[in-house]
Amino acid sequence: MFKGTAASPGIAIGKALVYKDVDLNIDKLNISEVENENKKLHDAIEKTKIQLRAIKKEATKKLGTEQAQIFEAHLMVLEDPELLSQIKDKVNNEKINVEYATKDIIDNFVSLFESMDDEYMRERAADIKDVGIRILKNLLGIEIVNLALLSDEIILVAHDLTPSDTATMNRDKVLGFVTDIGGRTSHTAIMARSLEVPAVVGLKNITSTINDGDTIVFDGEDGVVHVNPTENVLSLFQQKKKDYEVTRRDLEALKGMPTVSKDGRVVELAANIGTPKDIKGVIENSGEGIGLYRTEFLYMNRNSMPTEEEQFQAYKEVLEGMEGKPVIIRTLDIGGDKELPYLNLPKEMNPFLGYRAIRICLDQTEIFKVQLRALLRASVYGNLKIMYPMISSVEEVRDANKILEEVKNELDREYISYSKSIEVGIMVEIPAAAVIGDLLIKEVDFFSIGTNDLIQYTKAVDRMNEKISYLYDPFNPAILRMIKMIIDYAHEGGKWVGMCGEMAGDKNLIPILLGLGLDEFSMSAVSILPARKIISEISYSDMKKIAEVTLTLPTSDEIKEYIKDQLK
Amino acid sequence: MFKGTAASPGIAIGKALVYKDVDLNIDKLNISEVENENKKLHDAIEKTKIQLRAIKKEATKKLGTEQAQIFEAHLMVLEDPELLSQIKDKVNNEKINVEYATKDIIDNFVSLFESMDDEYMRERAADIKDVGIRILKNLLGIEIVNLALLSDEIILVAHDLTPSDTATMNRDKVLGFVTDIGGRTSHTAIMARSLEVPAVVGLKNITSTINDGDTIVFDGEDGVVHVNPTENVLSLFQQKKKDYEVTRRDLEALKGMPTVSKDGRVVELAANIGTPKDIKGVIENSGEGIGLYRTEFLYMNRNSMPTEEEQFQAYKEVLEGMEGKPVIIRTLDIGGDKELPYLNLPKEMNPFLGYRAIRICLDQTEIFKVQLRALLRASVYGNLKIMYPMISSVEEVRDANKILEEVKNELDREYISYSKSIEVGIMVEIPAAAVIGDLLIKEVDFFSIGTNDLIQYTKAVDRMNEKISYLYDPFNPAILRMIKMIIDYAHEGGKWVGMCGEMAGDKNLIPILLGLGLDEFSMSAVSILPARKIISEISYSDMKKIAEVTLTLPTSDEIKEYIKDQLK
Repeated sequence: MFKGTAASPGIAIGKALVYKDVDLNIDKLNISEVENENKKLHDAIEKTKIQLRAIKKEATKKLGTEQAQIFEAHLMVLEDPELLSQIKDKVNNEKINVEYATKDIIDNFVSLFESMDDEYMRERAADIKDVGIRILKNLLGIEIVNLALLSDEIILVAHDLTPSDTATMNRDKVLGFVTDIGGRTSHTAIMARSLEVPAVVGLKNITSTINDGDTIVFDGEDGVVHVNPTENVLSLFQQKKKDYEVTRRDLEALKGMPTVSKDGRVVELAANIGTPKDIKGVIENSGEGIGLYRTEFLYMNRNSMPTEEEQFQAYKEVLEGMEGKPVIIRTLDIGGDKELPYLNLPKEMNPFLGYRAIRICLDQTEIFKVQLRALLRASVYGNLKIMYPMISSVEEVRDANKILEEVKNELDREYISYSKSIEVGIMVEIPAAAVIGDLLIKEVDFFSIGTNDLIQYTKAVDRMNEKISYLYDPFNPAILRMIKMIIDYAHEGGKWVGMCGEMAGDKNLIPILLGLGLDEFSMSAVSILPARKIISEISYSDMKKIAEVTLTLPTSDEIKEYIKDQLK
Repeated sequence: MFKGTAASPGIAIGKALVYKDVDLNIDKLNISEVENENKKLHDAIEKTKIQLRAIKKEATKKLGTEQAQIFEAHLMVLEDPELLSQIKDKVNNEKINVEYATKDIIDNFVSLFESMDDEYMRERAADIKDVGIRILKNLLGIEIVNLALLSDEIILVAHDLTPSDTATMNRDKVLGFVTDIGGRTSHTAIMARSLEVPAVVGLKNITSTINDGDTIVFDGEDGVVHVNPTENVLSLFQQKKKDYEVTRRDLEALKGMPTVSKDGRVVELAANIGTPKDIKGVIENSGEGIGLYRTEFLYMNRNSMPTEEEQFQAYKEVLEGMEGKPVIIRTLDIGGDKELPYLNLPKEMNPFLGYRAIRICLDQTEIFKVQLRALLRASVYGNLKIMYPMISSVEEVRDANKILEEVKNELDREYISYSKSIEVGIMVEIPAAAVIGDLLIKEVDFFSIGTNDLIQYTKAVDRMNEKISYLYDPFNPAILRMIKMIIDYAHEGGKWVGMCGEMAGDKNLIPILLGLGLDEFSMSAVSILPARKIISEISYSDMKKIAEVTLTLPTSDEIKEYIKDQLK
């Protein structure tokens, strides 16, 4: 039995295929024939290019253009003149074998990128590593195991999976992933969820303890991996697998249905997305709208602002894709932990309490206006709602709305049409906004509660800081009261209120949020059907009473216990 | 007319004495007689020591032991073997004049210290610079102008004032300071306030535009300096000076009086202090207690934790000094922007949302217990109240109180006595604490509102960040509502509530705070008498009505305007 990090749900039962990294320790040898080494390098690079082009083609077919782009990045690493000339120089100057020189230079490049401040650059380190291993294997004549050619059903046991591995593997034969390293947001975990393969990651040294053909069973939601289990355990997991499939079928049956509590209260279950390609998952999971489209991805991983046209195309794609269902697009929420190199944002002592989101947009209005123009132009293709992040005062909303009006007037003068019924709302994620909710609701059409930041600010805790992340607790009475305050203010103002933070998709919190009167829940697409099921099984009037009692309890523990007790 | 930073209140009218730094550009010369240079250095060092010892004696007499300690630090710089041997080595190795070598090595040391991460070390750079200039002047045979020997009344115009300057000057003859550099918390500004000399700092290049004997007038509260003013301006300032003196006499008359509004509401005006020596100023300014003793100064500028005995002595000194008046001692509030090198606190992405204050104390209980033992032991010498900072949940208060109980039991077992009537309260400075004030008040005897942090968290703004510090606004309706919420919860719980953030001493906010029902105001000692005067001139019942209306207004500007209008 091994304990790792639950990375992708589902029950896996099958035989292990241990996909071991080849030992790439290479001795340094003195050589006399430099020419020969150069030729070997040239051949290996060419071979690698041919392989990568084939993988890219395969990936485009299986995973779509977007996912396949990573191999374009890999091909670009191969074209990097700096990398190749450094390897050649090392061979020529030191008169050593090309394999050693290649490994050494690749390692240097990887460490260099890994040590960079910029997160994007750090991620490039993984690409260089992936390509580097491929070049080395080709140099050494090591056959690269082709996961596309799997013929038996297996559970893949690996140190870690690279993008080339997950892109090429024969998905039909892989019943699960278990890996030595990685966390919930590592490449392997993200791909597992996207491919709907159960997975447990971060199991330390499982590759060295499991053998090919061992029987493995695990539940991707609890992170415990059983190797060669007893009959009892095996049959338990076979039952679990059946139950899981029944639940999945139950959830399937809820597709396309409205979300209604046992006593008839209708709420909306929407999805949070980052890019237009996420729409596919939202439709598949029966999302009733987009509760949060994070537009900052449009601005990231590039060297300049996206143009109005680029933004327009993205917004249009999302609005059309959702076919008239509501789509809440949040205006640029950059800064804090999300940097844009080309914006030259100042280094800050406390970035979470700094120059970010609407604060940047109201300061650099030229950026804001381009986005608003693109949004307005796209609005005719669907049901657009615009949402401003990080609002902490009435003045900010008024200033933002004034700019929106200016942009509308501009479009009017240019005879460009836009929807006349766009709702405008704000994220309520700063305590100040909650406290003056009655004043703010008069300025907007809706609220959406951003619980991640709301908790951070209300509790004065950076949840990424391990020393104190225990304080980041959604069950804290202060947080639940803050949420109630926001919902009540919105309703007293005759408006609707949603939530797009992580709390909205948490199965333990959904009953309380329903009881507090939340109108819209926005979450990751895969959580939508389970949430619909939960809501269909509880009654709003019961939850209302439970929520009321909850708000009088002094500690998180008492609240959790009380809710657990009531929902039994 | 020059505009600088208002640094110390009061009206100054007088003749300028321009205290210019001597030009210390020194040419590099080749020398043959190394021995001679070494002797010059030795003589200059000895002369510097004699001067510094004399200054230290003078400073001890005039300013007290604490203030004089800085000269002990200066003397220690002179003893630094590294500094001296580097100068000698440079002379010997490069065969150059000792003056150049000294300047070069001192500059290196200063840059080195200035570039350090540690704030304490950075501050040492100023000490080294101060001593360095003194050594150089002695080397060069430049007479060091002795501000102790001033015979005419003057306004001192300088690039900046060093600790040696302010310590030695003949206070009776100095009517004001104006300097090129510095801000509200620079040495010159702090000393000006402490010496009660009107001052304006940060005037850029005023030393090069003013001449000895020019007439200067300024108001230390507005930062505008007039040079050779017209008759009109001069007589205006003469009137201002008279008014200022009348006001000062009015304030004098309020010394020792209770603080009572026009309609008889009694409140308490207490002081914020950092060290026992601040007690003198509190008594002089008629403080009715200590509303906040920041114990972290005890822990700073040293290489290890203060012992229980050291802490006990400091707490005892404060309690005895206040002669039975209430003294609220806040337990260690370290972390955030205040670091302790010997604690090895982790580098944090958002230190204000990090591991600090009670979070550290509840994690490293051995530190907390030593402080609580020292506090309890000192409690028999006065009226001690203990206050925990950065509380965000009921659990934290309970955990802290449990540790306090443990320490009491320990003392009981050791037959060590402590007061049985110590009140225990919390800082309410995190939005979560405000929102669950009704739950928290049941656990404690009082609240004290920490407005600096409360505003930062409620508005999600780091006020030190210039890009967004405009959002840090005490007149924001969210902040005023938060304060009302806290006060109401305390009163509903039958307890009293104070405030120890900067808002409590702000003359424009005091009327509103009185109206909201605040029981205790804690501020810097010099603000106490002006605050008593303001409160004596307004009525609680009027302010209550004004505060109520205030809370319905949507923007800071409207609130400010309304209050201004009402108080006219």
